[in-house]
Amino acid sequence: MLKAVLLDISGVLHEDGVALPGAVAAVARLQAAGLVLRFVTNTSRKTGDTVHADLRGMGFDVEREQVFTAPAAVRHYLVRHGLRPYLLIHEGLEPEFADLAGDDPDAVVLGDAESRLDYRHLDAAFQCLQRGAPLLTVGTNRYFHQQGSLHLDVGPFVRALEYAADTRATVLGKPAAGFFRAVLDDAGVAPEEALMVGDDVDCDVAAARELGIEACLVRSGKYRPGDEARVPGAACEDGLAALVAGRFPEA
Amino acid sequence: MLKAVLLDISGVLHEDGVALPGAVAAVARLQAAGLVLRFVTNTSRKTGDTVHADLRGMGFDVEREQVFTAPAAVRHYLVRHGLRPYLLIHEGLEPEFADLAGDDPDAVVLGDAESRLDYRHLDAAFQCLQRGAPLLTVGTNRYFHQQGSLHLDVGPFVRALEYAADTRATVLGKPAAGFFRAVLDDAGVAPEEALMVGDDVDCDVAAARELGIEACLVRSGKYRPGDEARVPGAACEDGLAALVAGRFPEA
Repeated sequence: MLKAVLLDISGVLHEDGVALPGAVAAVARLQAAGLVLRFVTNTSRKTGDTVHADLRGMGFDVEREQVFTAPAAVRHYLVRHGLRPYLLIHEGLEPEFADLAGDDPDAVVLGDAESRLDYRHLDAAFQCLQRGAPLLTVGTNRYFHQQGSLHLDVGPFVRALEYAADTRATVLGKPAAGFFRAVLDDAGVAPEEALMVGDDVDCDVAAARELGIEACLVRSGKYRPGDEARVPGAACEDGLAALVAGRFPEA
Repeated sequence: MLKAVLLDISGVLHEDGVALPGAVAAVARLQAAGLVLRFVTNTSRKTGDTVHADLRGMGFDVEREQVFTAPAAVRHYLVRHGLRPYLLIHEGLEPEFADLAGDDPDAVVLGDAESRLDYRHLDAAFQCLQRGAPLLTVGTNRYFHQQGSLHLDVGPFVRALEYAADTRATVLGKPAAGFFRAVLDDAGVAPEEALMVGDDVDCDVAAARELGIEACLVRSGKYRPGDEARVPGAACEDGLAALVAGRFPEA
């Protein structure tokens, strides 16, 4: 019995800030069908408030409390463990962490996908890791989709620092089980009562299935032909609108 | 019967451009003992000519032909395969590749350890890799030693691009078997007739042993306490001078 739908945002609801065809209506249809909705993103360029405002601006009927971002999960972890982070984050995320940074950092946070990912900043992070600081990351996404092409996401830089310091990162967004569990808890549903919809075959689809959550890959956003082969047996639809039309038709 | 000694350069012969205590005399002693010497480096900041000139400047009696660098091996590979490289190399290496670059690259060369390792250049390399270009690298070294601390080397960035593009790099310097074999061929010796001396437990010591070359780890340069544990049974000496004094004493 399906009770909740978890929706990835970029590449599922919109591309480059423009709602995908039929996506606004599809989300409305899911709400009308009485499903609990949660919007889950690993975006490392925007705060949760901005993600929410952008969705509203595109016409999606979303409450702030329905939005779960990986940076917010990182912030929660830092506060809970009393850590002072070295922040390798995108400038768009600064408001999310402004009060936590300080001298003498004892954790490294990787949550960027562009602006500060240069040798100098990565080497400074490496110096922290050598002193035993844990490596925390929003995710391990390989690439993101923008303006019709794929670009390096945070995952490659996680792998770089893991290799340099011979350590393993603690992933706090997707595909971490803890992230999905926190969302399910908040939605008040069990894994087998939820459906995850995403365009990232690894971080959305494979990760959800690992936890016993049904998952559907959409052929929009960063999807590349052949991605299905990495999740045998998973549902695959052309997009959110097609998924909803087929599975939750108007009464 | 030992006939040849392969010497890593940075961290074995010198640190930060200053010859290590007793290193010049140790190299002279090996020459006097009738051993064939080869100097092997993964440095990605200098051409072979500069490496040679710097060694001479420090007082080492080295011929240009005895110096084997990983960037030269990359250049050789590019020429042999007729490849047009996208060069992600340190500015100090530009003379080594100046005639090979061009439009419409069909290979990515990673041979930097600093200046161009930023998001923009790495993402441009990722675009090439998505079009099927092979990823070539000078090495997979995790870090290098400079001014008393360890800094990111090229290896972490290799891992980053491998992960992003779901590919494996072709390594043309140490620890590649082909690099060691080319040096042994040039020296005219079999693996069991050679000794490799290095401060990199993976790329120097473990890699040489993998090929049946005896290897000695030195506790200088990038050596860190505990490195021995990664190569059980390998010789370990405080430095090149101690190794030579113990094993090749003056007659």
